[in-house]
Amino acid sequence: MKKIPYCDFGNKKKRKVNNKSKFYKHKGNFTWQGVKTERYKTEDGNWAGIIRKVLIGRHNESTKFHLRYFEILPGGYSSLEKHKHEHVVVGIRGKGEVLCGEKSYELNFLDTFYIAPDTPHQLSNPFREPFGFLCIVNAKRDKPEILIRGN
Amino acid sequence: MKKIPYCDFGNKKKRKVNNKSKFYKHKGNFTWQGVKTERYKTEDGNWAGIIRKVLIGRHNESTKFHLRYFEILPGGYSSLEKHKHEHVVVGIRGKGEVLCGEKSYELNFLDTFYIAPDTPHQLSNPFREPFGFLCIVNAKRDKPEILIRGN
Repeated sequence: MKKIPYCDFGNKKKRKVNNKSKFYKHKGNFTWQGVKTERYKTEDGNWAGIIRKVLIGRHNESTKFHLRYFEILPGGYSSLEKHKHEHVVVGIRGKGEVLCGEKSYELNFLDTFYIAPDTPHQLSNPFREPFGFLCIVNAKRDKPEILIRGN
Repeated sequence: MKKIPYCDFGNKKKRKVNNKSKFYKHKGNFTWQGVKTERYKTEDGNWAGIIRKVLIGRHNESTKFHLRYFEILPGGYSSLEKHKHEHVVVGIRGKGEVLCGEKSYELNFLDTFYIAPDTPHQLSNPFREPFGFLCIVNAKRDKPEILIRGN
């Protein structure tokens, strides 16, 4: 197991809260007006074929949570990792697989997964179409611990 | 303006956190295995034709947020209200209207709205099909203040 830097943890400065209401229009094809496409993580390794779009959490909103959209290309996968914070995952595009603890589940449209703290987990796309899901997390959260398969 | 009891605030007892991972399978037609359909609010008045399904928040999860699905029938509407907590709304079924401050917006599939604190708001369905949306809120939040139109 090794710890890697995680892109959401780079800036420890307290920024001024930006509390204007905002409408992020879905432009189609799982893109939103005013929302950038980002790398899944800042460092390579243990993941492939994922992008991240932060819907809520990049504009200094006062919410205690962030809302992100992730998309995994066919053959792609997220890091196998664990952390103290929870994940809530909601499938919205195609289908994919969720490894949670020892078990794997197929995640389809609107299937909702609560991944409890300290549970090793990984999302992957063994299918032919892109797999997209919303992922909600606490705004303040610990860094993931990257796990090596078989540990 | 009058304050009414709000169903999420009924139980002030601290319950033991239940941190098992859980999979809420979408059974189709915007219903989920293990998720009940509830009244929108415990008291009548100032709303019509809405139901609530709490996806995350009824099982003593440790998240700092709750995830709910609301569905408004044609002609229905939520309370016109404001509160200190934020709403994040994501359209997932049909389309509807969001009144936020002085402006109205049409909310379609995956359109995402950040409703800032203390902003009067109301969701409604002037269309012919059911309007369903995810709504994410902080787990700890203040009671809404119900507003009378024209105030």
